[in-house]
Amino acid sequence: MSKKLESILSKQSEQIDNALSQLFSSLPDFDMYQHLAYFMGFADETFKPKKIYGGKRFRSSLTMLLGEYYGVSEKTLTAALSIELFHNFTLIHDDIVDGDELRRGRPTVWKLVGTDHAINSGDAQMLMSLQTVLNDDHLTAKERNLTQTFLSQQYLKVIEGQFLDFTLTNQPLGSEGVSEEKYLEMVKRKTADLIAAATGVVGVVAALDESEQQDLFQYGYLLGTAYQLCDDVVSIWGSKNQTGKQEYGDLLAKKKTLPVLKFQEKLSKEHSDIFCANFNRSKELLVEEVEEIVAQFDSLGIYELMMSTVNQIAKEAKQSVDNLSLAETQKHTLKKVVDELLIDIKNV
Amino acid sequence: MSKKLESILSKQSEQIDNALSQLFSSLPDFDMYQHLAYFMGFADETFKPKKIYGGKRFRSSLTMLLGEYYGVSEKTLTAALSIELFHNFTLIHDDIVDGDELRRGRPTVWKLVGTDHAINSGDAQMLMSLQTVLNDDHLTAKERNLTQTFLSQQYLKVIEGQFLDFTLTNQPLGSEGVSEEKYLEMVKRKTADLIAAATGVVGVVAALDESEQQDLFQYGYLLGTAYQLCDDVVSIWGSKNQTGKQEYGDLLAKKKTLPVLKFQEKLSKEHSDIFCANFNRSKELLVEEVEEIVAQFDSLGIYELMMSTVNQIAKEAKQSVDNLSLAETQKHTLKKVVDELLIDIKNV
Repeated sequence: MSKKLESILSKQSEQIDNALSQLFSSLPDFDMYQHLAYFMGFADETFKPKKIYGGKRFRSSLTMLLGEYYGVSEKTLTAALSIELFHNFTLIHDDIVDGDELRRGRPTVWKLVGTDHAINSGDAQMLMSLQTVLNDDHLTAKERNLTQTFLSQQYLKVIEGQFLDFTLTNQPLGSEGVSEEKYLEMVKRKTADLIAAATGVVGVVAALDESEQQDLFQYGYLLGTAYQLCDDVVSIWGSKNQTGKQEYGDLLAKKKTLPVLKFQEKLSKEHSDIFCANFNRSKELLVEEVEEIVAQFDSLGIYELMMSTVNQIAKEAKQSVDNLSLAETQKHTLKKVVDELLIDIKNV
Repeated sequence: MSKKLESILSKQSEQIDNALSQLFSSLPDFDMYQHLAYFMGFADETFKPKKIYGGKRFRSSLTMLLGEYYGVSEKTLTAALSIELFHNFTLIHDDIVDGDELRRGRPTVWKLVGTDHAINSGDAQMLMSLQTVLNDDHLTAKERNLTQTFLSQQYLKVIEGQFLDFTLTNQPLGSEGVSEEKYLEMVKRKTADLIAAATGVVGVVAALDESEQQDLFQYGYLLGTAYQLCDDVVSIWGSKNQTGKQEYGDLLAKKKTLPVLKFQEKLSKEHSDIFCANFNRSKELLVEEVEEIVAQFDSLGIYELMMSTVNQIAKEAKQSVDNLSLAETQKHTLKKVVDELLIDIKNV
């Protein structure tokens, strides 16, 4: 997250951090909750209470910012917490499936306490994410019900997106089930629908009219889509310095992200078959081979194609902001969020 | 489940089956939901729709029976569905952790579609279990809120119980963390709190007075506790014919169930050390060794001790029924449920 974006959301992310900290310190003295406190950045590896970096809180901070703009700050806090808890629950379970041993520079939950506990503690956190709104005295029973319904529908889409991700991973490049369309469908559910939850829930809580609710939802949905595609670009063209992750990480892991699909779909049948066979082989790709692949991407203008795709989606995200009944300065900030969230794509 | 108990709950279990069948056939045409339809008994191993045995539906049927008694049948259906979905979600995730390959005579979800999908599809089912009440037009927003709050609190206890189960499993017999008290604490959360959810939720939906809500809750809580202990006994003293499971299953799996703990705690320090060392050894126990252990249990009267513990809890469960504002015939049936659920302990 860029310094500018951090500064736009600094008050909000502090609010989230404080509320989460309060939530975790109010939980029963039960080891299971310490796994979660650890993952969320409120305990060290020996489960001693300690404030450690626990993520950007981007989604929930965005909820808080919009809540402020619509004058419903107090009413949006528990929804924002729900989103942050849910997002982190997905990471706990994703890390198991992906076999990832580190996150935010620390051992993942399964690595620290075992897969059995990581599955179960993740389950607890998902349940907790669905509880936050239930006892919120700032909301009427009807508002709680509407908020819960909206959030849980979005959450189910995120889980569907995870399913689509496995399905894509398990099929070889070049097969019918692996296409730009399928990939975008996955990204929209797995990533966009959660950021759409973060923006859209404010429309629900503030009881905005149908069309403004839809615009708020679209803002997050498009922002989330562009964000994932930007991430795909940075993993291929970004430096380690920029991403903090392994250079060419996605390609070395043979992830069939949008740049790969755009490239493969541009090749002749013959060239595509050769490329796919190499990409699908069981042996790992070497760094030299990945560098050669990126050079081929460049010769077909894949970076520029990705840029133009991301820019188009970003433009549409900003257009949804134009329709909102907010002050111009507020709209300006929401557009700035789009630019700043996607800034890395320009810096590769 | 005994024939008599099946007949007491036959109408209710049919209601549940029909409602679940309707729910699953109304889901989007998305493969993930087919994993769940398969597990719940609405599809075969190739995911073709087919009615197959999907469990006893005991918990949810009990909710429906009580709903009928209190004249709130229509209002309890979505809560009953929630409980059935949640119960089955726990089984999907438990089967992964336990490495169990078969359930109800069919491959478990992870065995059929892989661990990644089984974690994720289980997550979806937990979420769905929390959605059933949200759009129930038979409930006011406030009733939905109260029901959700009650159920989710109970569900979190069940997940805490699973945590305690791992903790017990990971500690050797004879260590401080493994005791009758710890075991009972685990059983109460993992098993009793879900059956208490099934009975207690009717008190919430019917808005009974505080003390009657408590009695209904206690009825399920005690019934659930006795049920698990009965299961422990049957796994040791029951025949394969009776349980449909492997003879001595719990002992061969070195589960530290209540009979084992009661026995070990009765031994002198010296004998206990020998017994524990043998039980904790990494090598598997042979059937002959297990038979010898059971003979030792018998010589110390462990079966009789278990019987008296279960009978005492069953008696208390029936006492909570006495306090309910129901007709005598209804109370009689609820007591009959206790006897029939625990009947196997008498038939070993």
